[in-house]
Amino acid sequence: MRLKDIGETSLIKRLLERFTHKDPRVLKAIGDDAAVTRIDDKRCLLSTIDTLVEGIHFSKIYTSPKLLGRKSVSISLSDIAAMGGTPLFFLVSIALPSETGQDFFEEFYEGVKDCADAFGVFLVGGNTSASHSGVVITTAMLGEAQKDEVVYRSGAKTGDIIYVTGTLGDSALGLMALKEKGASGEKNGAFKNAVARHLNPQPRVSVGRLISRKKLATSMIDISDGLLVDLRHIAVESKKGAAVELEKLPLSNEVKDYVNRHPAAWELPLSGGEDYELLFTSPKEKAKDIFKVAKNTGVGITPIGKILPPGKGISVVKEDGASVPVKKEGYEHFMGNPASIDRSR
Amino acid sequence: MRLKDIGETSLIKRLLERFTHKDPRVLKAIGDDAAVTRIDDKRCLLSTIDTLVEGIHFSKIYTSPKLLGRKSVSISLSDIAAMGGTPLFFLVSIALPSETGQDFFEEFYEGVKDCADAFGVFLVGGNTSASHSGVVITTAMLGEAQKDEVVYRSGAKTGDIIYVTGTLGDSALGLMALKEKGASGEKNGAFKNAVARHLNPQPRVSVGRLISRKKLATSMIDISDGLLVDLRHIAVESKKGAAVELEKLPLSNEVKDYVNRHPAAWELPLSGGEDYELLFTSPKEKAKDIFKVAKNTGVGITPIGKILPPGKGISVVKEDGASVPVKKEGYEHFMGNPASIDRSR
Repeated sequence: MRLKDIGETSLIKRLLERFTHKDPRVLKAIGDDAAVTRIDDKRCLLSTIDTLVEGIHFSKIYTSPKLLGRKSVSISLSDIAAMGGTPLFFLVSIALPSETGQDFFEEFYEGVKDCADAFGVFLVGGNTSASHSGVVITTAMLGEAQKDEVVYRSGAKTGDIIYVTGTLGDSALGLMALKEKGASGEKNGAFKNAVARHLNPQPRVSVGRLISRKKLATSMIDISDGLLVDLRHIAVESKKGAAVELEKLPLSNEVKDYVNRHPAAWELPLSGGEDYELLFTSPKEKAKDIFKVAKNTGVGITPIGKILPPGKGISVVKEDGASVPVKKEGYEHFMGNPASIDRSR
Repeated sequence: MRLKDIGETSLIKRLLERFTHKDPRVLKAIGDDAAVTRIDDKRCLLSTIDTLVEGIHFSKIYTSPKLLGRKSVSISLSDIAAMGGTPLFFLVSIALPSETGQDFFEEFYEGVKDCADAFGVFLVGGNTSASHSGVVITTAMLGEAQKDEVVYRSGAKTGDIIYVTGTLGDSALGLMALKEKGASGEKNGAFKNAVARHLNPQPRVSVGRLISRKKLATSMIDISDGLLVDLRHIAVESKKGAAVELEKLPLSNEVKDYVNRHPAAWELPLSGGEDYELLFTSPKEKAKDIFKVAKNTGVGITPIGKILPPGKGISVVKEDGASVPVKKEGYEHFMGNPASIDRSR
C-alpha cells in the first residue's frame, strides 16, 4: 500500500501504537499540537516540529524568502500557543539547492529574526545542508508551561462552547487567489488581506497564554488543517461530538464577499487550512472571562458551536437547524490533494 | 553570490552575527554541537537539529529504511553526546513522496524505535508531510546536563592532549565502497564493517556522559564533517592551534589495509566525515582517568596529538616530524562536493 492510499492521520495512528511508552517524564507524546515533558514538579517543556516543503507548502513564485522565514517560525509558535505555553527557543534546519543565491538565505533569516524578535523567542540552533530538490525548512520550537496550565485536545466536555479566534478561511482564499491570478496580480488585489494571511499568518501566542493562565479552556488546538479536521481532533481526543453553526463562523470582509458570490466557497472557512487561529472549548459560565481576553488582546474570539455527547459526530448546521453537507473536512497529506502547493499542514 | 561559492561555515558565521542576543537563559546558541539553555540553577537543556536529505546524505540504493531510521536518531544522539549530555526526547519530521510505499514508512520507524530503545530516549513528536522531491528527514533531539558539566568546543588549553574515540575513516571508506561497488556487492564484501559504520553509526553517548561527569575534557565535538574540520572548530573556538600525529590515528583493520595499499587514502581518516566519534581535549594529568573510561565503556580512546598555542594553525605531522600536506580538511556543504550522496554532515 502506498502513502497516498493511507493518509497522514492513519500514519500518525500507527506511530502512536508503536511508540506508546510509560516514562513518567513524558506527559504527552505524539497526538497533540506539541509534546509535553516534565521539567520539574511544576513546569513542563513543550516541543514541536514542523516542516515546509517547496512545491507542497509554498512556492517561491508566491512568497518571498523573508515571508517564508517568518512563516517557518509562526507556524511553530502557533503549536506552542495551542498548548497555552510560552515559546522560548527554536532551531531551524534548512536544505537548499547549492544554486540558491546568498540573498535568499539572508532574506529568509531576516524573516526568521523579525518573527523571533516580535515574539521574544531565540534561535538557538541551526543546520544548513544542500538539497537536490528544492527548499525544505524544518523548525523545532521549544516552550514552557506550568503543568496545571497546559491545555490538551482531550478535555472538552458536553455542553462546552466552541470558540475560535480571528477569522476563518482567509488563508485558503488567499492561496486560491494566488493560484488563480498569480502573485503579482493578487498581492495588492481584491484579496490582499487574504493573501497576507496566507503568506504571513499571525500565531495567537498571547491569546493562548491568557486562556491557559486563567484556565478558561477545556481543550485547544490551532487550525492548521481546517476548522472541521481540527475540531474532529478535539472531538476524537475528548470522546465527544460537536456541532458548528454556519452563520456564526467569523469571516473577514473579503471572505464574506467571496462566499456571498460563490456559495460553494463555504468550504473555505469550514475546511480551508492554515488559518493558524486557535480553536478551543470552554464551559458556558466562562464566557465573560473569554471576552475579556478578546478585549485585552485585541483579537476577536467568537463562539461558533457546542460540544455534544459522544456518538454525535461532527456536524455543521444552519440557523434554521438544517444540516450542511461537507465534502471534505480539510487537508490530508498524501491523499490526492492538488499536486502543487496544496494548502496544507 | 550563490551558496556554492560561500559554503556552510561562512553561512553559519553570518547567522551568528545576526542572532547574537544576551538572554540570560541562552548559555550557548549557534556554534556548538547543541544549544545550551538554562532550565534552573543547576540544569541545562540541550537541543540540536539535523537533517538527512535523499541524494545528499543518503541514497535508497545503499541503505534500508530501517538503517535510515536508526541513523536519523544516532546522528542527533551524537550531538548530545558531544556536549556530555544525557539525551532524553526527540522529534522527527519526515517528508515523503506520496508514491512511497507504506513499508518504507513502517520500516523507517522500526529503525527509529530500535535506536531510541537502545539509548533510552523517547520519540515525543512527529510531523509527516508530502514531498515532490525525495525523502527529507529532520530530527530534533533534546537532552539535559548539569550546567557545570557541559563540555563546549571552546575550552581547549595549550598542552592539552587531543583524544579520539573508536576508529577513524571507516564511514568514508564504507561510502566509497558502496559508491564503487554498489550496495549488494559491498554489504558483505571486503569493507563490510566500514559499510556498516557508514550506514549505522554508533553515537558515543556513554563515553560522552562519563567524560563530562568526571570533568575530564576541556573541549569536545563529534566528528561529523571530518577529523581536521572538526578539530579546527575546537581550535578556532578555543583560540588555539593543534597538531595531529599521523601514525597515532586509530584505524580499523579495513582502513589500515586500504591505506597501506593506497597511500593517498590517508585522507579518509583525516578528512572523511560521518565517523560520529568523539574528539576531545584533556590535560595530560587526566590520562589515567580517560583510559578508565575507555575500559569501563569498552570504547577505545586514543591520544592523537596536542593543542598548541594560538597562531599555530592545524597541522598533521609524521613521527619523524615531517609535515603532511592536506588537500581538503573535510566536508563543506554547497562547495562543489561530489553531486550525489556527498559524504556529509
